[in-house]
Amino acid sequence: MYSIGVDFGTASCRAILYNSYSEKTIKTVSYYYKDDEMIGNLQNSIKKEQQILQDPQQYIDGLIAVVTTLMNDQLIDKKLIVAMGIDFTSCTCLPVDKNFMPYSQVPIFKNEPNAYAKLWKSHSAQKEANHINDVLKDELLLSRYGGSISSEWLLPKLLEVKNDAPALFKEMDLYIEAGDWLVSKLTNTISRSSCHAGFKGLWEKKNGYLSQRLLNDIDSDFSTIYDTKLRGTVQSVGTIAGTLCEEFSELLNLHDQVAVSVSLIDAHAAVPGAKISTPGVLQVVMGTSTCHLLLSEEECIIPGVAGVVEDGILPGLYAYEAGQAAVGDLFASFIQEQLPPKYSEAAHENNQNIYDYLNSIAEKEQHKEHGLVILDWHHGNRSPYMNQQLSGVVIGEKLSTTAIDRYRALLESTAFGTRQIIELFTNHGVAVNEIIFTGGIPLKNEFLMQLYADVLQRPIQVISVPEIPAVGAARLAIQASGKSTNRDNSKVQSKVYQATKNTYEEKYTLYQKLGETLHKDDVMRMLFSMQNEGD
Amino acid sequence: MYSIGVDFGTASCRAILYNSYSEKTIKTVSYYYKDDEMIGNLQNSIKKEQQILQDPQQYIDGLIAVVTTLMNDQLIDKKLIVAMGIDFTSCTCLPVDKNFMPYSQVPIFKNEPNAYAKLWKSHSAQKEANHINDVLKDELLLSRYGGSISSEWLLPKLLEVKNDAPALFKEMDLYIEAGDWLVSKLTNTISRSSCHAGFKGLWEKKNGYLSQRLLNDIDSDFSTIYDTKLRGTVQSVGTIAGTLCEEFSELLNLHDQVAVSVSLIDAHAAVPGAKISTPGVLQVVMGTSTCHLLLSEEECIIPGVAGVVEDGILPGLYAYEAGQAAVGDLFASFIQEQLPPKYSEAAHENNQNIYDYLNSIAEKEQHKEHGLVILDWHHGNRSPYMNQQLSGVVIGEKLSTTAIDRYRALLESTAFGTRQIIELFTNHGVAVNEIIFTGGIPLKNEFLMQLYADVLQRPIQVISVPEIPAVGAARLAIQASGKSTNRDNSKVQSKVYQATKNTYEEKYTLYQKLGETLHKDDVMRMLFSMQNEGD
Repeated sequence: MYSIGVDFGTASCRAILYNSYSEKTIKTVSYYYKDDEMIGNLQNSIKKEQQILQDPQQYIDGLIAVVTTLMNDQLIDKKLIVAMGIDFTSCTCLPVDKNFMPYSQVPIFKNEPNAYAKLWKSHSAQKEANHINDVLKDELLLSRYGGSISSEWLLPKLLEVKNDAPALFKEMDLYIEAGDWLVSKLTNTISRSSCHAGFKGLWEKKNGYLSQRLLNDIDSDFSTIYDTKLRGTVQSVGTIAGTLCEEFSELLNLHDQVAVSVSLIDAHAAVPGAKISTPGVLQVVMGTSTCHLLLSEEECIIPGVAGVVEDGILPGLYAYEAGQAAVGDLFASFIQEQLPPKYSEAAHENNQNIYDYLNSIAEKEQHKEHGLVILDWHHGNRSPYMNQQLSGVVIGEKLSTTAIDRYRALLESTAFGTRQIIELFTNHGVAVNEIIFTGGIPLKNEFLMQLYADVLQRPIQVISVPEIPAVGAARLAIQASGKSTNRDNSKVQSKVYQATKNTYEEKYTLYQKLGETLHKDDVMRMLFSMQNEGD
Repeated sequence: MYSIGVDFGTASCRAILYNSYSEKTIKTVSYYYKDDEMIGNLQNSIKKEQQILQDPQQYIDGLIAVVTTLMNDQLIDKKLIVAMGIDFTSCTCLPVDKNFMPYSQVPIFKNEPNAYAKLWKSHSAQKEANHINDVLKDELLLSRYGGSISSEWLLPKLLEVKNDAPALFKEMDLYIEAGDWLVSKLTNTISRSSCHAGFKGLWEKKNGYLSQRLLNDIDSDFSTIYDTKLRGTVQSVGTIAGTLCEEFSELLNLHDQVAVSVSLIDAHAAVPGAKISTPGVLQVVMGTSTCHLLLSEEECIIPGVAGVVEDGILPGLYAYEAGQAAVGDLFASFIQEQLPPKYSEAAHENNQNIYDYLNSIAEKEQHKEHGLVILDWHHGNRSPYMNQQLSGVVIGEKLSTTAIDRYRALLESTAFGTRQIIELFTNHGVAVNEIIFTGGIPLKNEFLMQLYADVLQRPIQVISVPEIPAVGAARLAIQASGKSTNRDNSKVQSKVYQATKNTYEEKYTLYQKLGETLHKDDVMRMLFSMQNEGD
């Protein structure tokens, strides 16, 4: 038996054909969106600063392209495909009509930014997020989200629609996560996932959504919002949303009995992708940013952990999510805007990629010598401070500081950030027994992984599962279909890094101390507001 | 009538032939030392970390080379040269025997680092400086130096000789500033300048040197040190040390009646070089570092001002010195280690030097947008914190921060540092009525000067006097000879920059606030000590 997993990222989507018995990926197909931030007919000048939009039609185009390409060489009989699952970057959401048609396709709204999909990283609803945080400030539910909600989440994005495009708000039938939207289209039923709803929509398995009173305090038009524009029963990840509707079974050239499972967030799909199903295994998904996912049998409120959601990743377990807002992005911005030519030229002469070259020089250094400590807040801080207004800090610069010193201090800062998050869990009684790294960077940068092991003072495992979120989606789809055959408990193969030295304690203490001092300092808020003023 | 001024810097010396009547420089000759940190036969590995040495023979070689070249085309009759003055980077000092021969030329000491000239920027006597500061901590005299003395100064450097090379210490006849040494050689008498002694040697016109009790507390071998190895009557700047001795009148091909004036510090020589002779005119000498010099009729104790010395620059006035430890050096280290190739390539394509190119981009920016604040402590902080253990801080880094943003924030940080120093003077009742900039950078970087005017919110004058310290030395030499003819009170021509906008107040407040918080923070001391540990 086979399933299909489709992983929707920021710039592309990827489908895999997965053999559920052998647990092998048979084929992979990728589709790059025409433009990362493609917005169809919308003139760029119309949208707000920090509003990051996409034309949702490309998700459908991408889905059809990857699935039909997956099947076009008829590697297997299409009847053997029993399930299909989708994961999607979140919170990416859009307004649709009662036929699930996006409003960006309605002529009168084609110049309305709010009619398009707002990408997860769109920060234009900050005003709305502040307002909602203000309304909820004394509510227990906020503590499940580390004390505040982000402008990236569902309610602020929807409130922004209401504030900026009241006509659209009035007319829209549903406001929905793009992952749920695709599953709804595929099954022709409204689908709402416990993962999306729990981590980004303020839903909780025991108590459901916000009370009508709180919703009314947020906005008088929001008092019944979960019964109207946000309606739809929340279903657990790993369960079936429906079977493929006729339209899509034709479009995708698949059998109409294919079970379509509830969607989930892309990073979170990496957990079943790595075959993690037990509490206490921390999965560190490291890419442009880093996401830390941990399963537990208990719910524990941890300030600074972005979310704890029952059934959030696997049915029956609590899923915790913490994060570092800039990791790969941070290294890339260093290469782009801080690296003088002599290094890239030397890398080129040595036939090395730039990271390999920088690592080869950095590893000869005694790390203490550079005496630099960086706070990796260049895109704000998720955990533990949950503050997008924070910005990066470098301390210890000297005339003799080299680009290598800065590079190495940046690597260290992200490792310190991960250690701080691990201690956040363990200090609150949530066990971290194993640490597994996935994502592109851990496979490519061995020096970095050794540095992480030394900073964390624990062994870490790096897992290589190609297209791991798509594998996770495919595995959950099989589980949802009820046709799971394999109960292989063998672990995925990994490379293990052991801590080899213990010399980072003092620097980590400085990182923590400096963070504790500066995250509360007015200077950060003043810098943030200064950037939005003119001279 | 003519005089010769010779300016000894870190990497070269320069001589000018100066017409005292027309106040014009007739000819200029430069001589570059073979190696900035040339140390003759001394093996590099023998010296300590942070110990920066030079072979003093090159000062003599340079002096002979520049003066004889100045005279070799017989532009004027050598009898018309009535005076000669020397300025020298300070505190650069060396041990000599009773014939003024440096011990680096004594075979048994040729491998002894302490036998060489210790350059002003040598920081290897920090342990000794700490000890002396400890002994003097309750003494009023320290307040004249902003509360502490530096490892760069005379007593720590001499105590280092005693500690590290006791045999040499015992044998040496004199320990002397290189400027005083050259004047002593030229006149064959021991010369000690009020400028060197006052700013770097703890001398005061009214009370002389330290008491025997304090000297004994510093080291039992130091109790009579000012009568032995540091002996020599301190004479005011602007007075005559003697006439040229026979040996040097031959070596330099000059008349033996030439009056040789007391030497002074190179930066300080820029004050008479700019024809400043009245209180209240702040001279900002901007080069690799920045030196702020101010004359006053009154002595006022200002914490963080590195020195106040009666007769320190001009006879009869108190001279104040404050400073910023890294300015041009800071910009250069940015270009060297933080500027990605696209900028240098674009500068090259536009046929612009890199600073002009960066300025042309930076001036299009609204400075608030980058939201970066830098503390320019990359080589420690002189004024107001007098702390060499401080290091640079960058706050406000984002993923979108560009090299241009960083460049602009660096320029701003040095302007904030200068404003802080001006406020240090005025808040303590020492008037700053005019601000004059001299040095290479102010002439080359108009964007920077406009930025300074806007940050300082005052008009600033930039003066172009080529080889200004040498001109100052030549002018003081004429004055010392008693043959001064010209009483022209015309000012030197200047370019004036007016403040054009008032948008830096908020950012300057952040700079100050952050400095006040961090200079006292343990994190700085911990970073400093970390750099000197192994992993």
